[in-house]
Amino acid sequence: MSAKVNRQWRVAGYPEPGELVGDRHFEWAEAPVPEPDAGEFLVRTVCLAPGPAQRGYLKAPDDGFLQGLAVGDVMRGRGVGQIVASRHPDYPVGEVFVGSLGWQDYSLQQPRGAEFVYSTKKLTNPIRPLTSHLTFLGQAGVTAWFGLLETGALQPGDHVLVSAAAGGVGSMASQIAKLKGAARVVGIAGSDEKCRWLCADLGVDAAINYRTDDVAACLERQFPDGIDLFFDNVGGEILNIALDHLAMHARVALCGFISTNYAGGAQQGPINYRRLIPRRASMHGFVIFDFWERWPEAEAALLGWYREGKLVNCEDVAHGLERMPECLTGLFTGANRGVKVCRVAPDPVGLPDA
Amino acid sequence: MSAKVNRQWRVAGYPEPGELVGDRHFEWAEAPVPEPDAGEFLVRTVCLAPGPAQRGYLKAPDDGFLQGLAVGDVMRGRGVGQIVASRHPDYPVGEVFVGSLGWQDYSLQQPRGAEFVYSTKKLTNPIRPLTSHLTFLGQAGVTAWFGLLETGALQPGDHVLVSAAAGGVGSMASQIAKLKGAARVVGIAGSDEKCRWLCADLGVDAAINYRTDDVAACLERQFPDGIDLFFDNVGGEILNIALDHLAMHARVALCGFISTNYAGGAQQGPINYRRLIPRRASMHGFVIFDFWERWPEAEAALLGWYREGKLVNCEDVAHGLERMPECLTGLFTGANRGVKVCRVAPDPVGLPDA
Repeated sequence: MSAKVNRQWRVAGYPEPGELVGDRHFEWAEAPVPEPDAGEFLVRTVCLAPGPAQRGYLKAPDDGFLQGLAVGDVMRGRGVGQIVASRHPDYPVGEVFVGSLGWQDYSLQQPRGAEFVYSTKKLTNPIRPLTSHLTFLGQAGVTAWFGLLETGALQPGDHVLVSAAAGGVGSMASQIAKLKGAARVVGIAGSDEKCRWLCADLGVDAAINYRTDDVAACLERQFPDGIDLFFDNVGGEILNIALDHLAMHARVALCGFISTNYAGGAQQGPINYRRLIPRRASMHGFVIFDFWERWPEAEAALLGWYREGKLVNCEDVAHGLERMPECLTGLFTGANRGVKVCRVAPDPVGLPDA
Repeated sequence: MSAKVNRQWRVAGYPEPGELVGDRHFEWAEAPVPEPDAGEFLVRTVCLAPGPAQRGYLKAPDDGFLQGLAVGDVMRGRGVGQIVASRHPDYPVGEVFVGSLGWQDYSLQQPRGAEFVYSTKKLTNPIRPLTSHLTFLGQAGVTAWFGLLETGALQPGDHVLVSAAAGGVGSMASQIAKLKGAARVVGIAGSDEKCRWLCADLGVDAAINYRTDDVAACLERQFPDGIDLFFDNVGGEILNIALDHLAMHARVALCGFISTNYAGGAQQGPINYRRLIPRRASMHGFVIFDFWERWPEAEAALLGWYREGKLVNCEDVAHGLERMPECLTGLFTGANRGVKVCRVAPDPVGLPDA
C-alpha cells in the first residue's frame, strides 16, 4: 500500500434547504488504515461516483428514504476498489469490489445478506478502466436502462424526450433510447456545447438548451405528434412544460428532480399534471434498488453495445479524493458532461480492457 | 306533447379564468319544437346531468379536448329522454334514449357512427327512475368503476382514499371500492353532514372534512401504512397532501381537478409528485370515453349490486329545466350530495322499476 493513512471526507454540517452543497459541508481527515476483523476485508478505493442523491445523506440520521449521516461520519458514496487485506475466504486479496466505499481511501467491508449481494459485490469480470463500473456498466447505465425499458415501457418508434441529457443518467438514457429503436430522441441540456455533443457524439436527433431556448416552442417543433416517453431527471419547470406536450398514452419516467433539489422556499409543482387526464398519460416513480437482481441483464447488453462501438462511455473524470466535494457540487450546477467519477488511485495492473 | 315550445338554455358568455360559472353565462330562450328530417328523430328530455366538464364547453370553438361552444349555441349536456317523433326506422317513437340532448326540452338526433353507438344509444332495458341512467348506471357510476378497477388497478385489501367522496363520481367510487374488497375506504368531503352521510349511508370507514380537519394529520392517522389507491377528483392541495401519504407502489387515478377548475391566477401544482419516486408510485390520467365499449360490463355489475341492496343510488335531484345553471354552479361550490341530476319532465309511463 502506498498510502500510510486513510484520507477521508467526513460530514461537517448539513446544507440548508435551498443551499448548494459544497466544501463547507465536509471536513478532510486522516485516520489510520483499519485492519479487518474475522469475516471482514479491506478495500482500497480506486474510484468514486458522486450522485445527486448523496446531498440527501446530509441530514440527521432518521428513517427516511435516504438514511442521514451524523456530523463526523465518513461521507457515504459508491465506488470501485480492490481488496487489499482479507479475513473472509470468499473475498480474497486482489479481487475487485464495487459497493458503498465512502469518500475515503480504505473501507472495511463484510457481506450483509441480499442487499450486499446485489448492490455491493465482487466483480467477476472487471474491465479497464474500472470507472466503467460506475458509468455505463454502473448505476448510471442501469438506471437509464430500467427506467426507460421497464418504468417507461419504451416501444420501438417512440418519440422520446430526456432531460439533463448530458448528465450521467441522461447521457445513457439518450443513447439507450436510440439503440432500442426510438424514432426520435431529443435531449435537454444547459449549454450549446453540451447540445452539440449530444447531437454529434451521442446521436440524439435534436437538443434543446434550456438556458437560452424557448423550451415550449422547441418541444412544439420537435414533437408535432407529442412526446411518447419523457425520461425526467430534473422536475421543476421543464417537467411542467413537457407535460403540456405529451402524446396520447404517454409515460413519464420520474428518475429525479435535480432542479428542485436545492431550491429554497415555496416550490411550485407541475400544474400541468392535469394534462395526464386528456392524454390518458401516466407518471411513474422508480428506484434502481428494485432492479438489482436484473442488473446483469442490463450490464450484458450495455457491454455488448460498447464492444460493438455503438455506445459511448460518457465519463467525466476528476482526479484526486480531495476533489469529491467539488464533484458533488458540480452535479447541481451542470459542471459535468456524462457520468461524473473521481479517480482516487490507479487501476490495478493486469485487468483486461473492455 | 305537452310543451308547445322548446325551452332552452343558450350560451350567453364565457366565464373568465377563476370565475365561478353561473346564471349570467346562460340565456333562457324559447324556440319552436323542431321536426325530424329523414334519418332523424326527436327526443323529449326527461332528465339532464350537469357535469364539471361542462364548464369547459364555455369557450370559443376550437380543437381542444373539450370542444367549445359559440355564444348563442344551445348548451351541451348529457341526458335521458324519450323518442317522440321519428323518421329513422331503428329509433321508433316511445323508445328511451340517452345521449347529448343539450339543455333543452327537445333535441333532434341521428346516428353518427361508433361514437353514437357507445355514448348515445337507445336503452334496451330502461328502468325507473330514468335518472338512474345518469347516476349509478350512468357516467358517474361507470367512471368510478373503470377509474378504480382499470386505471387504479384496485386490489382486494387495498387502503383507498377518495376525494370529493360525497360528489357524483366520488360517492360511487367510495361504494365500489368497498364492494370490491378494499380493506379501508376513507372519503374526503366538504361538510360534517356529508362526512356523516358517507359513513352512515355509504359505508366508508372514515371521512375527513377538508374545510375543518387537518387533512395531513387525518391521513397520517387513517393510513398508518399509506394509501394504496387514491381516486382523485379534486387536485390542488388535497392531491398534494395525499401524495405525501402514499404506500409503496401506490396508484393515483386522476379523474378530475375540480378544486382548480375555476381557480384564477398562477396555480401551484403538486410539488409532492416527487414522492412518487421513493414510493415507486404512479399517477394515471383516464377518460371514460375510452371505456364505452365495456360500459355494459360495469352496468350489469352495478345494477346487480343495486338490486341486492348493496349499492345506494346517490342521486341529488333538482326539478325544472330552469334550474340547470344553478345545478352546474353547485358542482363547484359543493352544493350536491351524490350525483346531481335535473328532472325536466316526468318519466314515461309503463317503465319497470330497477
